[in-house]
Amino acid sequence: MRPLYFENGVLKLIDQTKLPNETIWHEYRSYEQVAAAIKDMIVRGAPAIGVTAAYGMVIGINVINTGDKDEFFEKLEHIASVMKNTRPTAVNLFWAVDRIVRKAQENKDRSIDEIKEEILREAKRMDQEDVESNRRIGEFGNRLINPKDTILTHCNAGSLATCDYGTALGVIRAAHEAGKEIRVFADETRPYLQGARLTAYELMQDGIPVTLICDNMAGYFMRKGEINCCIVGADRIASNGDTANKIGTYTIAVLAKENNIPFYVAAPVSTIDFGIKTGEEIIIEERNHREVTHIGDIQLAPKGVDVRNPAFDVTPNRYITAIITERGILYPPFEESIKSLARTANPR
Amino acid sequence: MRPLYFENGVLKLIDQTKLPNETIWHEYRSYEQVAAAIKDMIVRGAPAIGVTAAYGMVIGINVINTGDKDEFFEKLEHIASVMKNTRPTAVNLFWAVDRIVRKAQENKDRSIDEIKEEILREAKRMDQEDVESNRRIGEFGNRLINPKDTILTHCNAGSLATCDYGTALGVIRAAHEAGKEIRVFADETRPYLQGARLTAYELMQDGIPVTLICDNMAGYFMRKGEINCCIVGADRIASNGDTANKIGTYTIAVLAKENNIPFYVAAPVSTIDFGIKTGEEIIIEERNHREVTHIGDIQLAPKGVDVRNPAFDVTPNRYITAIITERGILYPPFEESIKSLARTANPR
Repeated sequence: MRPLYFENGVLKLIDQTKLPNETIWHEYRSYEQVAAAIKDMIVRGAPAIGVTAAYGMVIGINVINTGDKDEFFEKLEHIASVMKNTRPTAVNLFWAVDRIVRKAQENKDRSIDEIKEEILREAKRMDQEDVESNRRIGEFGNRLINPKDTILTHCNAGSLATCDYGTALGVIRAAHEAGKEIRVFADETRPYLQGARLTAYELMQDGIPVTLICDNMAGYFMRKGEINCCIVGADRIASNGDTANKIGTYTIAVLAKENNIPFYVAAPVSTIDFGIKTGEEIIIEERNHREVTHIGDIQLAPKGVDVRNPAFDVTPNRYITAIITERGILYPPFEESIKSLARTANPR
Repeated sequence: MRPLYFENGVLKLIDQTKLPNETIWHEYRSYEQVAAAIKDMIVRGAPAIGVTAAYGMVIGINVINTGDKDEFFEKLEHIASVMKNTRPTAVNLFWAVDRIVRKAQENKDRSIDEIKEEILREAKRMDQEDVESNRRIGEFGNRLINPKDTILTHCNAGSLATCDYGTALGVIRAAHEAGKEIRVFADETRPYLQGARLTAYELMQDGIPVTLICDNMAGYFMRKGEINCCIVGADRIASNGDTANKIGTYTIAVLAKENNIPFYVAAPVSTIDFGIKTGEEIIIEERNHREVTHIGDIQLAPKGVDVRNPAFDVTPNRYITAIITERGILYPPFEESIKSLARTANPR
């Protein structure tokens, strides 16, 4: 269930604002359209946003019609800045755009057509790497799952949040494929309902038993002993392991700690922002109030009510039992385990 | 903003499923209709349910057309059982119905017409007492509020949950009336959205600054230091202080403890169930799945998804800073403070 395809210079995105009621694919032929699709959450999920932005770069760069290298790089930088200016929290976006820019710079002595080809190849490589990473995250994460575990997840860190298979849901899929007879509780994840609309849908498609609950019910089931572990994805992980993820993740982590339940983060290494020390440095996006006050055209709250709508929160590292990456499982102290990872990481 | 009126043998309830978009009053002329209104949450909130049930008893008893005392009491017991069989968690319901039955029994040697009059008087007394209790809860609770506090509340423990003024919102109103320049964060309170629909509405009507957030955002604002205390109502309080309240309350209490924020419960003494030792004995109602999967006619989740929908949870006493009643503020150890209260309580 890939959320995106790139074919013949056209990016196709499944409209994640409409799932599961409607399955609509949109086609994108300009980088401005791709940027708008990211901003409007047609595509969402840190890894999927990253690869979408890379393909958006490809689309934008393809139509730079000049023989002048300086002009080419100037326009490329402009496209990169438009793409980066869509959503502030998920670091994969910046990582992907920077990787495309770097690939262009590495090839700056070649012809513009050759640079364009290299960029296309790089975007496709990132796409493939993402799927492979998720499979490896699944393999590593599966080691942490016990047979018959009931797993709580929040938001959607599934196929639809990545290029396929998923991060948190990748672990769940791997455990299911290993025959562990797991069950899943999916938080509905207000205001955007990614859990109700996307996670429940993905798991039902795969025949993995899933129970939908409201966000405020997770604590109830933890206290009743009905949840064995929590797995979530991540939008940005600081060098000390502090993790930004969908709003409500911090709450789950606190509840898990209070109830002695392991709390796992599953994310590719590209989600780690080695450039920041702690989660305090992560910018938290605040989104449109209408997401909170309306469902479709139905108004849920009094007209004119004041609203806050942070889209993410930061879970301090002390609440995290382990971070599952495609390069292995990281344990506390995360300052050290992430530093070791950085030393051996491929320069990206 | 009273949610109920009883006049000329007819009970009028404001339809709380439709607020704030529509203001619709329904009239009830049979006890079966009143029971259905409680079950369907036309009226909700423990104290309001209690008084509604008392008036439902009055309506049912008024049409018992017999001169035979035994038959009269048999029918009265039947009406009581129908009324009690509506919702299992809020103890005020059982307390109110039992109080009506007891009043009838105390007057069993008088004429049936006189018994009917006594019952009507008792129901009206409970109605008045509730408003007076809430005012006193407000006065006591106000002592715990600092000027310029930002207060988090969950669900609706306001005028609409009582006969007027409210319990948790009674404290907030009292602090506002005392000129303390408080602000309120209101959790929207899924699935039924009492926070978005009712609490935000009540506070806006009163000119008390209120900000609406999703349930999963409360932790974010606590961690940022933007919340100074939490106040919620209660549906049932055990003898040890364990408190059943709207689903999500336990989560807030855990987050408050983790962030060193006081967590207060505001409720009349009628909410204390002196007959149970701990919250483990409280039955938690699970409601219709459609509350979670739909908003109006809009489907939020895949067809056929499995759902759990507990309407309440129990917050263990160790998370509660104080319980604010009309008879004073109770502090830990609650086993003792509640026992002292029981010793001096009016027999009810």
